[in-house]
Amino acid sequence: MKRDDGRTLNQLRKIKVTPNFIKHAEGSVLIECGETKVICNATVNENVPPFLRGKGTGWITAEYSMLPRATEDRNMRESVKGKLSGRTMEIQRLIGRSLRACIDLEQLGERTVILDCDVIQADGGTRTTSITGAYIALEIAIKKLLKEKKIKENPLKSQIAAISVGINKGQVMLDLKYTEDSTAEVDMNVIMNDKGELIEIQGTGEEATFTREELNQMLNVAEEGLKQIFELQKKYVEEAF
Amino acid sequence: MKRDDGRTLNQLRKIKVTPNFIKHAEGSVLIECGETKVICNATVNENVPPFLRGKGTGWITAEYSMLPRATEDRNMRESVKGKLSGRTMEIQRLIGRSLRACIDLEQLGERTVILDCDVIQADGGTRTTSITGAYIALEIAIKKLLKEKKIKENPLKSQIAAISVGINKGQVMLDLKYTEDSTAEVDMNVIMNDKGELIEIQGTGEEATFTREELNQMLNVAEEGLKQIFELQKKYVEEAF
Amino acid sequence: MKRDDGRTLNQLRKIKVTPNFIKHAEGSVLIECGETKVICNATVNENVPPFLRGKGTGWITAEYSMLPRATEDRNMRESVKGKLSGRTMEIQRLIGRSLRACIDLEQLGERTVILDCDVIQADGGTRTTSITGAYIALEIAIKKLLKEKKIKENPLKSQIAAISVGINKGQVMLDLKYTEDSTAEVDMNVIMNDKGELIEIQGTGEEATFTREELNQMLNVAEEGLKQIFELQKKYVEEAF
Amino acid sequence: MKRDDGRTLNQLRKIKVTPNFIKHAEGSVLIECGETKVICNATVNENVPPFLRGKGTGWITAEYSMLPRATEDRNMRESVKGKLSGRTMEIQRLIGRSLRACIDLEQLGERTVILDCDVIQADGGTRTTSITGAYIALEIAIKKLLKEKKIKENPLKSQIAAISVGINKGQVMLDLKYTEDSTAEVDMNVIMNDKGELIEIQGTGEEATFTREELNQMLNVAEEGLKQIFELQKKYVEEAF
Amino acid sequence: MKRDDGRTLNQLRKIKVTPNFIKHAEGSVLIECGETKVICNATVNENVPPFLRGKGTGWITAEYSMLPRATEDRNMRESVKGKLSGRTMEIQRLIGRSLRACIDLEQLGERTVILDCDVIQADGGTRTTSITGAYIALEIAIKKLLKEKKIKENPLKSQIAAISVGINKGQVMLDLKYTEDSTAEVDMNVIMNDKGELIEIQGTGEEATFTREELNQMLNVAEEGLKQIFELQKKYVEEAF
Amino acid sequence: MKRDDGRTLNQLRKIKVTPNFIKHAEGSVLIECGETKVICNATVNENVPPFLRGKGTGWITAEYSMLPRATEDRNMRESVKGKLSGRTMEIQRLIGRSLRACIDLEQLGERTVILDCDVIQADGGTRTTSITGAYIALEIAIKKLLKEKKIKENPLKSQIAAISVGINKGQVMLDLKYTEDSTAEVDMNVIMNDKGELIEIQGTGEEATFTREELNQMLNVAEEGLKQIFELQKKYVEEAF
Repeated sequence: MKRDDGRTLNQLRKIKVTPNFIKHAEGSVLIECGETKVICNATVNENVPPFLRGKGTGWITAEYSMLPRATEDRNMRESVKGKLSGRTMEIQRLIGRSLRACIDLEQLGERTVILDCDVIQADGGTRTTSITGAYIALEIAIKKLLKEKKIKENPLKSQIAAISVGINKGQVMLDLKYTEDSTAEVDMNVIMNDKGELIEIQGTGEEATFTREELNQMLNVAEEGLKQIFELQKKYVEEAF
Repeated sequence: MKRDDGRTLNQLRKIKVTPNFIKHAEGSVLIECGETKVICNATVNENVPPFLRGKGTGWITAEYSMLPRATEDRNMRESVKGKLSGRTMEIQRLIGRSLRACIDLEQLGERTVILDCDVIQADGGTRTTSITGAYIALEIAIKKLLKEKKIKENPLKSQIAAISVGINKGQVMLDLKYTEDSTAEVDMNVIMNDKGELIEIQGTGEEATFTREELNQMLNVAEEGLKQIFELQKKYVEEAF
Repeated sequence: MKRDDGRTLNQLRKIKVTPNFIKHAEGSVLIECGETKVICNATVNENVPPFLRGKGTGWITAEYSMLPRATEDRNMRESVKGKLSGRTMEIQRLIGRSLRACIDLEQLGERTVILDCDVIQADGGTRTTSITGAYIALEIAIKKLLKEKKIKENPLKSQIAAISVGINKGQVMLDLKYTEDSTAEVDMNVIMNDKGELIEIQGTGEEATFTREELNQMLNVAEEGLKQIFELQKKYVEEAF
Repeated sequence: MKRDDGRTLNQLRKIKVTPNFIKHAEGSVLIECGETKVICNATVNENVPPFLRGKGTGWITAEYSMLPRATEDRNMRESVKGKLSGRTMEIQRLIGRSLRACIDLEQLGERTVILDCDVIQADGGTRTTSITGAYIALEIAIKKLLKEKKIKENPLKSQIAAISVGINKGQVMLDLKYTEDSTAEVDMNVIMNDKGELIEIQGTGEEATFTREELNQMLNVAEEGLKQIFELQKKYVEEAF
Repeated sequence: MKRDDGRTLNQLRKIKVTPNFIKHAEGSVLIECGETKVICNATVNENVPPFLRGKGTGWITAEYSMLPRATEDRNMRESVKGKLSGRTMEIQRLIGRSLRACIDLEQLGERTVILDCDVIQADGGTRTTSITGAYIALEIAIKKLLKEKKIKENPLKSQIAAISVGINKGQVMLDLKYTEDSTAEVDMNVIMNDKGELIEIQGTGEEATFTREELNQMLNVAEEGLKQIFELQKKYVEEAF
Repeated sequence: MKRDDGRTLNQLRKIKVTPNFIKHAEGSVLIECGETKVICNATVNENVPPFLRGKGTGWITAEYSMLPRATEDRNMRESVKGKLSGRTMEIQRLIGRSLRACIDLEQLGERTVILDCDVIQADGGTRTTSITGAYIALEIAIKKLLKEKKIKENPLKSQIAAISVGINKGQVMLDLKYTEDSTAEVDMNVIMNDKGELIEIQGTGEEATFTREELNQMLNVAEEGLKQIFELQKKYVEEAF
């Protein structure tokens, strides 16, 4: 079975990364997965949130947002509404939690890295694209800290990437674009590291349900996709320097 | 290995349900899982949110909150802060999404069921306890609608329940209480129906990671626990009438 | 004349108190006045608000809230609205002010007691029930501080309790339940101590007015009711230990 | 005993009213009670709040605010804080409730009168001064509606005025200015109509308590003061035309 | 051509200033320009905002607000809306910026002057009237600081005043009242000092545009009007002492 | 005198425009003025705000925002703060007002064009760059409406563009970058149309002042710069099709 855009069921969309996209950020990329485009900026602050002060450990946090016209219909800005939506909070908590799993926070030292993921164009998979891009921005920022001798040893323990996988009309399908995602029966986000370990899985079937066997099929397909993404991340971090 | 409270690794805490706890609600229970206590109230409104008006379909939504002193240290009220935390939004979205998976919204008709889950005492597993209790409150409310002939056929397609499972000091462990949960390497919430199908899984290892094999072990243990919970739900719904 | 529920005009509803209701709080009761049920938790914090720092004096404050389905119709949560209603603020200011009148704040020392009054079921008189219950929670918390030798002398100067009294169809009536309260011409809340002194009175006749003579009749009836409540408070504090 | 400003214990401060103070409002006065100055504007809107639509009845509501520098120390604006304080809400609810007690809302017809009370200089008694002034602004607005034949019969049933009374150093004292109010043991606001009936009483002794006898003494003094105020209100309404 | 109120095209409205209007403020005036009435209060605080601490320099800031019934139709309070409008923020930023241009902030010392401009009646030109009045309130406050020897040298470098000028039906017109302003093609606010230097100009033609020549005509007319205002400011500052 | 970046005093920075930057928007450009980069998206909605309904006229409005890391130091998101800053409101009101001056709103018909200007990298002149880019996005969107025959005649009356000009160390200087802008004595934004008419001027000297002569010099320089920008706008609109 071929998909709308000619991909096979377990084929990724084309990934393109523009490193050093914004000049002010310590780490910055524009990541494009098919038509989904996200600016990922890593900011290094030489302090930590109050609950960590004086504990000799660093922190990684993330913020996620969409431009109003990233989507087919224009969305009202959250700054105009005066508050973040539940969806935004859920996504940025997921990004932060995932990225914290690839780093030794004590080796990072008493500093915070804020990962801003701003979706400028959306076509499905914005949260997984954000995680994959945020990792690259983070690694660029960390390499600069190493060069500037602000940290001695690389605190990164592994690469992190994320991909969506789902069941659409009964078929297990990798890296769903918007039209596939919005009609899927089951939708799962898989975050892994390059050692083949799971960081987080979130699988949900709002109208449908899924079996243990289907879960395993989805994880198999996701794992294969993520292996390719880890290679691309390596390549783009090198390009940044 | 025995746990603090004498349980074996795959043993549930004692579950106690007081049906018809609050007199005004269409469905109401106080559910206690060990020392975790949640009031679950189902409110039936004879209208639907704007995005569903005139579509001949109903809606299920949920709200979650904790009393300030449900926890060891007092938490500031979200009404005083002026906004819901990301954690609250994430949990109430999960409860609503899970409960929608057990019901035929068209058969429910153009009405909304709001499931209020208010934690009055917390000791780990408040979100899974909320889902398990909310299902009972929902079934009680639905049975009343059937009795009052407001709906003709039972729209419930299956029972829904949830349980937490994790890895603590390398051991897979069921139904973690607070002291176990806060020191766990991996924390997973499993929501299933009584047909043995998965509704949602959320697994995360903030500092640690987990393998596919560990994932499978956790799911096995969760599945066994949930079977016992489905029996208890049946019993308590009967008690309500 | 008999009332709906069989009571005489100057008869209290049945009061039931469950001490030590929530395990985490320093003082905790579930108080039931007829069908009105309020969880009153006292939290002791070892600090004071900024305006009192370094002045060698303590503070008592209160917060009041209702579960959405405490009432016949569901109320939107104030955390969802993003702000406290005027009614809530008025009530929690009253509770705090009343409780501060029974204690020597200097003897309390530089600590704050927060009294959380959460109405889980409402049937009239929620603010007076909250004050009566909050006093018990406070006395339990104070007795624990005395036992732990954190304070040397009992700072409590008197017991405090509150009751509603009103005029309904021309009749002075004690302890109004919701159906009586919502049709009353005059509604008054009387807060007194067990020495027979007034702490606060708030009397209002939104559509009607009342004479000095009616005011005196209402105060007489309230005073008699409060005497009985002071006896019950004594009994339930003893039960807590 | 003479007071700071030479008044006797049961003597009012000088009251001065400038009718038609703001040209746009349907009723407008600047009321000065000693050094307390409040602009009271009545706005007549030809509609009612949603809960009253189609019920053939009108509504009276009030808003209260202070200029930042109405007080000795500057207060932050509530518009800057982003919310009304509990004190503001309590006061404006009291003003609205009191004014509704003097009018037949059905005779008013389906229209709303909003009474804006803006304190431009404060020296104690701002809420009672607001009620006394708001009544005059309301009567002016009502007289205009009668002249314009928008309403046929005068819906006002009585005059309404308010005064503060308290116990300071053991002495019952009328119309407290700020220095007296801030050191008073007992503080009471009495709202009455010109038939000698009580509309609302609010008495509180934050640190102290008061007896039934003291309550009666305070009410006697307040009643005498209010008689004088009713005469002044009459005079100033006439002046407005 | 004569205008509605009989003025010639380049004639100011009558300006009246009541110095020392509010007793608590360090500087206070009621300024009336025709039917526009603004209370301008200067508050001196012996501290500076965080961004200036320890830099040996002072600060001037402004807040602007309108009473709800300052206008023909009642406006909702910004404190009720929970936020300041864009218009309010724009105006108060302009007032603060303008006043900072007339003072040597280092000579002011580490203190802040807050200029509260509260419009009690509006008839066009509220922002320019606010600036003109705020200057007088500021100068009164500064003179008091000099008298009290809190500052040694007068930090004021020049007088500041503002006026509106516009093009209405093709005619350049000075000091527009509301009916003229709301139908003007071009609307400009000119802030100058008494040395004839420009502090700020803001000219806008929402529907229309304007030429360089028209700009110059407007500036000429504004300059003449401002010369008269500087004389009035001098007179009213003297009157204050 | 040469500037930091080698430009002469009256030389523009290099302007680059990428038309059709975001696929979902009706009109979209990425505009770069030197290192300042802004995404300008035009959204066409087939309705108008409430105050214009049924009046046969359209509306143009604008929103402005900066990514947190558009600047050297990271700024907190306005969605996280819960409100728009005064600066943001001032800028987006200016953009909307300016763009409305180039269009016949009746010919636009009952539809709204929202111009979203999102600064992804800032180096001075973000508001003027936004206006210049927003015009191009608007013209692209209008041309599509004409092609789709949704409107018959072109409602655009002229081109609109904006540029900053200032006085830095006594020198009149065009198109200031951040380091020049932050040290300028006088800062002015000039918005004109391609007929040489002024739409809006905003000139301010926070610490300094400026003379009528300096104003004229600044306007001369701005006018010359804007002529070049109008040519570039024409070229890029053509490129979009």
